[in-house]
Amino acid sequence: MDSALEPPVLRIDGDRLWSDLMELARIGAYEDEPTGLWGVNRQSPTDEDAAGRRLVVGWMEAAGLEVSIDPMGSIFGRRPGRRDDLAPVMAGSHIDSVGTAGAFDGCLGVLSGIEAVRTLNDSGIVTERPIVIAASTEEEGVRFGTDMLGSAVAAGRIELATAHGLTDAEGRAFGDELRRIGFAGKGPALLDPPHAYVECHIEQGPVLQHSGAALGVVTGVQAISWQRVTIHGRAAHAGTTPTQLRADAGLAAAQIVVKVREMVDSGRFGRLRGTVGCLSAHPGLPSVVPDCAELTVDLRNPDDQDVEAAERELAGFLDSLPSSQPGLGVETARMARTSPVPFSADIQDTIEKAAADLGHAAPRLMSGAGHDAQEIAALAPTAMVFVRGQYDGISHSPREYSTPEDCAAGASTLLNTIARLAQEGTR
Amino acid sequence: MDSALEPPVLRIDGDRLWSDLMELARIGAYEDEPTGLWGVNRQSPTDEDAAGRRLVVGWMEAAGLEVSIDPMGSIFGRRPGRRDDLAPVMAGSHIDSVGTAGAFDGCLGVLSGIEAVRTLNDSGIVTERPIVIAASTEEEGVRFGTDMLGSAVAAGRIELATAHGLTDAEGRAFGDELRRIGFAGKGPALLDPPHAYVECHIEQGPVLQHSGAALGVVTGVQAISWQRVTIHGRAAHAGTTPTQLRADAGLAAAQIVVKVREMVDSGRFGRLRGTVGCLSAHPGLPSVVPDCAELTVDLRNPDDQDVEAAERELAGFLDSLPSSQPGLGVETARMARTSPVPFSADIQDTIEKAAADLGHAAPRLMSGAGHDAQEIAALAPTAMVFVRGQYDGISHSPREYSTPEDCAAGASTLLNTIARLAQEGTR
Repeated sequence: MDSALEPPVLRIDGDRLWSDLMELARIGAYEDEPTGLWGVNRQSPTDEDAAGRRLVVGWMEAAGLEVSIDPMGSIFGRRPGRRDDLAPVMAGSHIDSVGTAGAFDGCLGVLSGIEAVRTLNDSGIVTERPIVIAASTEEEGVRFGTDMLGSAVAAGRIELATAHGLTDAEGRAFGDELRRIGFAGKGPALLDPPHAYVECHIEQGPVLQHSGAALGVVTGVQAISWQRVTIHGRAAHAGTTPTQLRADAGLAAAQIVVKVREMVDSGRFGRLRGTVGCLSAHPGLPSVVPDCAELTVDLRNPDDQDVEAAERELAGFLDSLPSSQPGLGVETARMARTSPVPFSADIQDTIEKAAADLGHAAPRLMSGAGHDAQEIAALAPTAMVFVRGQYDGISHSPREYSTPEDCAAGASTLLNTIARLAQEGTR
Repeated sequence: MDSALEPPVLRIDGDRLWSDLMELARIGAYEDEPTGLWGVNRQSPTDEDAAGRRLVVGWMEAAGLEVSIDPMGSIFGRRPGRRDDLAPVMAGSHIDSVGTAGAFDGCLGVLSGIEAVRTLNDSGIVTERPIVIAASTEEEGVRFGTDMLGSAVAAGRIELATAHGLTDAEGRAFGDELRRIGFAGKGPALLDPPHAYVECHIEQGPVLQHSGAALGVVTGVQAISWQRVTIHGRAAHAGTTPTQLRADAGLAAAQIVVKVREMVDSGRFGRLRGTVGCLSAHPGLPSVVPDCAELTVDLRNPDDQDVEAAERELAGFLDSLPSSQPGLGVETARMARTSPVPFSADIQDTIEKAAADLGHAAPRLMSGAGHDAQEIAALAPTAMVFVRGQYDGISHSPREYSTPEDCAAGASTLLNTIARLAQEGTR
């Protein structure tokens, strides 16, 4: 690349970004009694979500972006480039939230993108490729049960009609709700593949804080495997029933929890993470041996073969349980399974350099959670920059917090990354 | 003992006993939808319990017993003996039930006693000592939270005023309820120690069925230790949080469940039985590491030193948990603790012989559950005869069932036992 065309190291306006984050966080705000903090409940597509969308559209338009809404309600703001015939560089995330959210999850990425555009405007810079800032619909999947819904349709993994037909707990359909808030757009459901996609997002974990780094370069998203296990035993009196005559469903559940941890600790399954989030025994009386127990097993691994091996090991363990407690029955049901999504090595390098230019040594790390980026990666080279979260990166909680400085560092890194990418392949 | 005075081997009228059992079971009966069976809900002191009491009092009076009610509402029916100055032989149990009961729990013992008296009447036998048939109040402890309440007051372990002041979930006091149903009797709260106390009761366990025996001689009641354990951890994202940074309350709970079973299996604590009946992790979301878990530990052992040693081992294990997961907190609260109650060896022998005279080889076994007999044992030599229950002795369920033949065998054994005891120490 001709160094004369290499963009200067740009910095966004941190105060302006922070002001936007706080203003958007007032939409859907509620007072969280246990913590005394303000949380955010802006699930899509509620009226609060609609208000948030209108606010963001207004900011996009004020920044000179041409706004379009797709049939899933995802919002796109386009900044022309010198070569409008070329595929754009896209930066985005989501502005819908979980029910007990903070101000940063998803919003940081969208508002960083808008702030990046404002900075380019302020600097009088015209990029070669167009730049598109995107806010994808229903990333959290709380109401309709499927996360990354908007980006999954855009990437062609889920049909538009299927997504529109999903219903919430009250039986309302996603498509109807989208129309109700006035965000059912026109045009194709499939996204025209961008040249590149970059997402700035809070880490939602403790690694950057423990590493003393404000930013991280994300290598990809782990495979996720969720299953529900139900164990049937025999209710029995705790006092009168000899141990060898029991089929204790709670004991079997406990043995599974301990087994999952042993599998993680063994090192035989690479960088496996395993979690039993749901665990309960029934009937739940102190003097009754449980006749039923339920649990969920969440396995994560950056390597698909390792997670498959872990699934097989666990399945074998479940099969073995009745032999130690005759009469026990074990059922499993797969709840979700996604393969690992590696991110573009080139874009990772670009992010790392952009961070370094701003004075940040950004370590590489994996994403433990799902993001819109993992869907868009099916269409275009993709990567993410993580921003450190305080309090071990707690998220999905009013306690979620990243400092104004760290947010600004992430947004500036995003800016310089997309500016550089917007010059690629144009000679 | 002069063989001329040894009572003949008597047999009760099994049809008459069965008819009584079925008639009493119609009071407080309800249709249990899952099983299609009739269950019994005759908790004390409800109106249903009052109706059951009046029925039993009527039977006692028709059998010629002089009925008295004590200040706890316990019912006593007295049959004179040739030597009314001597302490009586008492046989009894309870007629109150849990909310989802069968026809036999407690009722078998009281109705067997009345049937025994009828048989003595029909045989024209006058015993040396008086015989008293007792139905103790509030054995189940469902409404007011303390089981064996009537017999505990009678034995002096609980004060009358304390018992009368216990309240149910709606805030109603036991004493008020007893007065409301017209069964607050007069006289001393403490029971005059009988010469002996014998209780016939269903086993509520699987041992007799698995042994192929209709009857069992009960050696005593195990020690019972109940504690509630609450574990505090740190909520964290299942995907983004490295394993070594977790304080997983659910994992710790599972480790405790597995430890309790290891303690039982190790043999280091004698004939320990251990049960975790309640087990739950919170917040109970598949992708969130649990920050709180609760469980109950029920330990039983016929030997007090063994159960104390088990409690100490468990306490040491609980103390060790935070070392493997820094940040974990573990609290325990003792819910209940009773010492073992051994039964009279002589009365056990008498029961064994009575059963043998009827053609039953009755093995010795321990009681895993609490009974009025364990309270009365503080006042007088006491033992119990168990009757086999079908379906592994399931109890506290409409499926509770003992055959007419087994019930009759238990009642006849009770009859011959109390007849023999009623001749003791009279020369």
